[in-house]
Amino acid sequence: MTIGSPTPTLPSAPPDTRPLIAISMGDPLGIGAEVIVKALSDPELRALGRFVIYGMESVLVKAASSAGIRPFWFHVDSREPIRVDSGVVVSDFAEFASQDGSAVRPSLEGGRASLRFFDEAIEAARGHRVDAIVTGPIHKVSWKMAGCPHTGHTERVAQAFGVKRATMMFSAGDLRVALASAHVGLFALRNEFTIGLVFQPIDLLNDALRRWFGIERPRIAVAGLNPHAGEEGQFGDEERRIIEPAMQMARAGGIDVEGPFPADTLFTSHRRVRYDGIVAMYHDQGLIPVKMLAFDRAVNITLGLPLIRTSVDHGTAFDIAGTSQADSGSMREAIRMACVVASRRVPGQVIRC
Amino acid sequence: MTIGSPTPTLPSAPPDTRPLIAISMGDPLGIGAEVIVKALSDPELRALGRFVIYGMESVLVKAASSAGIRPFWFHVDSREPIRVDSGVVVSDFAEFASQDGSAVRPSLEGGRASLRFFDEAIEAARGHRVDAIVTGPIHKVSWKMAGCPHTGHTERVAQAFGVKRATMMFSAGDLRVALASAHVGLFALRNEFTIGLVFQPIDLLNDALRRWFGIERPRIAVAGLNPHAGEEGQFGDEERRIIEPAMQMARAGGIDVEGPFPADTLFTSHRRVRYDGIVAMYHDQGLIPVKMLAFDRAVNITLGLPLIRTSVDHGTAFDIAGTSQADSGSMREAIRMACVVASRRVPGQVIRC
Repeated sequence: MTIGSPTPTLPSAPPDTRPLIAISMGDPLGIGAEVIVKALSDPELRALGRFVIYGMESVLVKAASSAGIRPFWFHVDSREPIRVDSGVVVSDFAEFASQDGSAVRPSLEGGRASLRFFDEAIEAARGHRVDAIVTGPIHKVSWKMAGCPHTGHTERVAQAFGVKRATMMFSAGDLRVALASAHVGLFALRNEFTIGLVFQPIDLLNDALRRWFGIERPRIAVAGLNPHAGEEGQFGDEERRIIEPAMQMARAGGIDVEGPFPADTLFTSHRRVRYDGIVAMYHDQGLIPVKMLAFDRAVNITLGLPLIRTSVDHGTAFDIAGTSQADSGSMREAIRMACVVASRRVPGQVIRC
Repeated sequence: MTIGSPTPTLPSAPPDTRPLIAISMGDPLGIGAEVIVKALSDPELRALGRFVIYGMESVLVKAASSAGIRPFWFHVDSREPIRVDSGVVVSDFAEFASQDGSAVRPSLEGGRASLRFFDEAIEAARGHRVDAIVTGPIHKVSWKMAGCPHTGHTERVAQAFGVKRATMMFSAGDLRVALASAHVGLFALRNEFTIGLVFQPIDLLNDALRRWFGIERPRIAVAGLNPHAGEEGQFGDEERRIIEPAMQMARAGGIDVEGPFPADTLFTSHRRVRYDGIVAMYHDQGLIPVKMLAFDRAVNITLGLPLIRTSVDHGTAFDIAGTSQADSGSMREAIRMACVVASRRVPGQVIRC
């Protein structure tokens, strides 16, 4: 070193521009804490973003202990402001910790807690403090016991953002499926089955595949409602009356869409690979293939929101909660997808889908 | 040879006791002839039984020629009596041969011919001249054009035998599924969805698994109708009102049956292996898993008849007819299963299921 030369200074660390992901823990009595802890215990996954978990530290600690994982997070009381410079922060709602953990079933307390965690994540997103939301599993009966009018995350977050057009999409291996309907009785769907109901997922899926998956001109297939897609009207006319007009609307908007196809063959490997995404008419039509292809690995993505929200595709699994048997594959994929998609955002801006 | 010893005589060949299987060729414009010829060109499959094909020799010859297969059958005019001592006999309905083969779509002629072939097979079965029926693919629109009131093979054969309780079952790898309903519009099913409709396939599947598949005490799972099997009544009450009472009836009859389970997870590999058979509530709920697991390999079996009837699980595939591209895997399995099950019959008796 030459005498008189300027004193060298360490360059200041650049600000961490990785996406900030809010994770709601889900029902404290379910496997949410376990799959979050297991998933984020992987340093490679943690390296993709920064994370704030809305939940209960006591439950996370217990799940980590059962799984032989050392806690890797910072702890903040939920009443305190959060700053996630890097790594993982748990925003701890200790007030729920007193509940009796022995009753592993739907409960008022479980509903209240999981609603609170999710609402905090939504608030952070509305305040543009996070880039995406990942949700752990909740139980709909618990939510109902807690007085929640919504049947699931999707309905609740849609209302919070004032969004009327929210749609569930699932990603499972080479299959991407958007649902025209979800949590409604199969026969009750008859009263809601409209051209708009079918058009919406075609439109939102097309948009998501372009913006989030980087597919310039997505090819979309639409499943029929009836056996053999109605077989030329012999088993129902909804294909002609509802689905085809919805597809016409989509085509008029420049969307490359084909169908309606008989659902039983559409999901076979050699058919589904022809399309970037498939629109299913009802819950089980889309979810049977998703879960057969990627049980515990599928990701649920909400389309139509101003930000990314991904979720595990499984439930609270009360029957195995606390036993450290849960597979964290779906949570890992949900976090990974949220990070990857959120990384495509313009810095400082919320992605608008 | 010692002079004066008795002249040795060849022992007379024992009568061929292998099952005699009737095969209806299906729509002459479809891939039926092709998959039959391809399947039976395998000497190992032919060794399992004796076969009479009700169809058109000209179409079979053409299919064999396209596939590079030498004819392996004896030819009999359909007006002549048939004797199948061994091997394969084609009962030839040459009167249909004059139709124009260029229009590869549903047609009156295709409907008439495929109805006739099937009716001849049924007559042979009713006369106890054959032990089982295997059916090639027909087109429901062709049948309708030909004035047939039935929507498929199952309905027609059930009426021919005066059977009110016929049910479709599918065998696909490790999965066996019976359907509570099949060719009915999804929303129209509401008007038919009764306790009896759900009880019947449980009962018939249990019976078939015991008698035909040799399972002493079959374990049967029942799928729910609604998403999440109604999730405790939140998305429909048919599970409580209809499916559970049907299961109670089955249990009262000594059947080991569980459910109703959410359909999306029931068909995953680690769930379905727990059961010998599954009862699905509607066509696509059962057929989506069947075709995903075994496209072009699944077998359709009619339960409730006094004899075995198996079928390919695919359609006429008019789009590839005549190109020799069809996969004969499903026909091969349908023939094999008919032979194996029919071989279990008491000689001289028709199996009563």
